[in-house]
Amino acid sequence: MSLSLYDASIPTFLHSLRALKAILEKAVAHAEARKFDPNVFLSMRLYPDMLPFARQIQIASDSAKGAAARLSGTEPPKFEDNETTMADLIARVSKTIDYLDGFKPEQFEGDDNRTISIKTPRVSLNFTAVNFVRHWALANFFFHMTTAYALLRHGGVEIGKQDFLGPVPQV
Amino acid sequence: MSLSLYDASIPTFLHSLRALKAILEKAVAHAEARKFDPNVFLSMRLYPDMLPFARQIQIASDSAKGAAARLSGTEPPKFEDNETTMADLIARVSKTIDYLDGFKPEQFEGDDNRTISIKTPRVSLNFTAVNFVRHWALANFFFHMTTAYALLRHGGVEIGKQDFLGPVPQV
Repeated sequence: MSLSLYDASIPTFLHSLRALKAILEKAVAHAEARKFDPNVFLSMRLYPDMLPFARQIQIASDSAKGAAARLSGTEPPKFEDNETTMADLIARVSKTIDYLDGFKPEQFEGDDNRTISIKTPRVSLNFTAVNFVRHWALANFFFHMTTAYALLRHGGVEIGKQDFLGPVPQV
Repeated sequence: MSLSLYDASIPTFLHSLRALKAILEKAVAHAEARKFDPNVFLSMRLYPDMLPFARQIQIASDSAKGAAARLSGTEPPKFEDNETTMADLIARVSKTIDYLDGFKPEQFEGDDNRTISIKTPRVSLNFTAVNFVRHWALANFFFHMTTAYALLRHGGVEIGKQDFLGPVPQV
């Protein structure tokens, strides 16, 4: 037995996005309990030239969305990056979960070494599908999700690694 | 085609540990250029009750080492967690790379739904091998690697996401 490209990507994104949603909800509850505006989190940065919290969530969402679209050869929906509140960011994560939930494993079938291309104004990259999943999509996703977690932790929100890992199914 | 449990774990750890080693070397060069002791990084934390930088590296190492041992049904070497300098941490990462490099894909063969158990003083967990890889081993590894990166970034080291992602093989 072994993992299909679907198995190696979508369940990880779904599991972790659900954990991220719960973390965002805890951050809101934390702010409300201390009577400060939860939306101050959106502009927090760990260093002046790092991206702020809101962008970390948006890019984590886009990493998962873009991976699913590229691997299935479909066109992803455009998310406008217009979130201005924690409630907006929670809705963004929910929307990403709903999008990923709509895929079926058979949409990811095909040669594991087929080329997955990424073109941006700055770079043009061509990966095998396997390397795209393990060295690009998952790494990018976890990079931004962990940075978002680190920002909330740095900002005093009482969360721990169990929140990050989420409830992993047990045998 | 599809990914074996080896394909879905060890190449990711190896690729990212090599990126982490290069990041640690950049942090040392950064400190030397600014004439401060690079070893001050070891005790940096993003929040008082978070683990310091040295522990983030040690746990990233242990996440990868422990996953390889559990999936192959072998006994992992004990790493003493006695690193006190950046050079020690770089050596720890190198030692982990060497250990992982010694595995062969056939050592990971078997039922993807075989039970992988983890027992600590606090928890007893039983995963299917697939869920252990994607929801536990990879998530834990990237969590600690990203937190280490974030600490260096927060400490002013000039690194970027390209350093984190490393040179992903191109078609």
